Amino acid sequence: MRGAVLHAPGDVRVEEREDPRILKPSDAIIRLSATCVCGSDLWPYRGIEKVDGPTPMGHEYVGIVEEIGREVRTVRPGQFVVGSFFASDNTCEICRAGYQSRCVHAELMGTIGTQAQLARIPLADGTLVATPDVPSGDLVPSLLAASDVLGTGWFAAVAAEAGPGKTVAVVGGGAVGLLGVLAARHLGAERIIAVSRHADRQKLALEYGATDIVTGRGDEGVAAIKDLTAGLGAHSVIEAVGTQESMMQAIRSTRPGGHVGYVGVSHGVELPGMELFFSGVHLHGGPAPVRRFLPELIDLISNRQIDPGKVFDLHLPLDQAPEGYQAMDQRRAIKVLLRP
Amino acid sequence: MRGAVLHAPGDVRVEEREDPRILKPSDAIIRLSATCVCGSDLWPYRGIEKVDGPTPMGHEYVGIVEEIGREVRTVRPGQFVVGSFFASDNTCEICRAGYQSRCVHAELMGTIGTQAQLARIPLADGTLVATPDVPSGDLVPSLLAASDVLGTGWFAAVAAEAGPGKTVAVVGGGAVGLLGVLAARHLGAERIIAVSRHADRQKLALEYGATDIVTGRGDEGVAAIKDLTAGLGAHSVIEAVGTQESMMQAIRSTRPGGHVGYVGVSHGVELPGMELFFSGVHLHGGPAPVRRFLPELIDLISNRQIDPGKVFDLHLPLDQAPEGYQAMDQRRAIKVLLRP
Repeated sequence: MRGAVLHAPGDVRVEEREDPRILKPSDAIIRLSATCVCGSDLWPYRGIEKVDGPTPMGHEYVGIVEEIGREVRTVRPGQFVVGSFFASDNTCEICRAGYQSRCVHAELMGTIGTQAQLARIPLADGTLVATPDVPSGDLVPSLLAASDVLGTGWFAAVAAEAGPGKTVAVVGGGAVGLLGVLAARHLGAERIIAVSRHADRQKLALEYGATDIVTGRGDEGVAAIKDLTAGLGAHSVIEAVGTQESMMQAIRSTRPGGHVGYVGVSHGVELPGMELFFSGVHLHGGPAPVRRFLPELIDLISNRQIDPGKVFDLHLPLDQAPEGYQAMDQRRAIKVLLRP
Repeated sequence: MRGAVLHAPGDVRVEEREDPRILKPSDAIIRLSATCVCGSDLWPYRGIEKVDGPTPMGHEYVGIVEEIGREVRTVRPGQFVVGSFFASDNTCEICRAGYQSRCVHAELMGTIGTQAQLARIPLADGTLVATPDVPSGDLVPSLLAASDVLGTGWFAAVAAEAGPGKTVAVVGGGAVGLLGVLAARHLGAERIIAVSRHADRQKLALEYGATDIVTGRGDEGVAAIKDLTAGLGAHSVIEAVGTQESMMQAIRSTRPGGHVGYVGVSHGVELPGMELFFSGVHLHGGPAPVRRFLPELIDLISNRQIDPGKVFDLHLPLDQAPEGYQAMDQRRAIKVLLRP
């Protein structure tokens, strides 16, 4: 099969990879209908995260079940399925509490590499959710978004306790931040302040329900959010970047007793204990337990109540993955969908 | 009047201070029935926190209202009152959300110094809660505890979401940690693991409702808590120390999706972003909004349902404050009550 492999910073190639096989009786093999490039794929692509030798890329996926191991009960060949970037058994105590990304048997899909034609999905019963029918093609981008970027934005909004009567600020204008806006709107937030400096992202933020746009970063962004909230800060702040600056902007933009939901994969962040202590905020986040939200998200997408697939502003054949990485790296695209 | 003043590390003196006066129409003057030494008073006493010149000490207080400013409506001379270490208006948006310690008009009582015979209480209407009657003397230590150390332990337990079915671990065997145990028990926790190495504190922890005692600190303590929780960690962890070691012990002792309630005043703490991200815990804490809990705590104490005053294992006349500081510094006493 064909699959994307990162050889060195900036050097991603689509090449022949071995077809995946059922390794455990709980595995399934899916044929991908669509996959995509994640903001977090850019960390190793940019050389900020080290890679040891050629590394298969990708952890987002939707597709048709091709084959199942003998223990798999909840999905069958021919079904269209959505899964998360963490495989999970969905039965352990941590999964049942809604933290499937920290399942006691969790496996990171990033090590499998779903920017490919086929993928092995571990713990298929727990990981995959089948759609009622094979969806029409125009729904595929939105279902693919549910696999990570929508589920992550949704978790951030839930972690930030976005809801009726709340003012929600969103730090990070990438796909996760934009879908955090969509989630906050769906959860009933009264006012949604999107922090973004790019016209195309501002436009989509407004379409998704943002009521205000702030362009400043760091302390300037904090001041702008305080100006809009009677000097108190937002009730709920979504952090979707993962840098020191964005984390501190999120914490400082939150009123005492408010909630920060942070989902940007942390890079080089050190939180000063004393400032955090006196901030009085709630802090929650991490790798989103996307599996918790999949049934609801699939439902909302199937009923065309939400349209998260709009974040994919560039669709390419899998073989053009290198161009997809470049476009995202250079911010020419918000998020790139790849068709295997 | 007489009052305790810190002149230099280790040098606290009880000396003549000027009687407080009503400065603003919202002030009240109280005559203290009891006051005490806080774990946080030891930071400057030990020279870890710098002080600039002679500093009046103390921020915990109960007493009889002596005089009120002309705007004060909810308390009157002769009433017995309890207040928090932050004066608050109890009417602003932040107060109404339950975060009175971050009231937009908050004033820190530590700058006033309540280890004295008299004290000026700013924002008396918002800050002070009167008991139904002047309480019998044996209730005074428990009511004094409500002023900070009980309210703080209570907030920590609430922030850690202690409750029915939960396993709660308490890092820090001082008075706040002990009253965190009491709070967790009252909130219905199923199992309470106290981390303490001192026999007297372990004994009180068990009296207050601890079901297990762990003696290890740092990673050893984490391992002990994991051993008691099927390798998952506690649902709820109370942090009541404020050091790097205790914060990391608290975070690492919490299961993914669990809650850390931290109230130890942060000293030299830097939280590693990446580890926090992948921990998947909820983090909430800071200076406890004690005022939120005062009516309920006064009620529980007046009805003799809880007995937090037991943490005061040394009672001294105010003039012996220096001995009180020494006893706490040397861990000869858990907490010292001073009678003005």
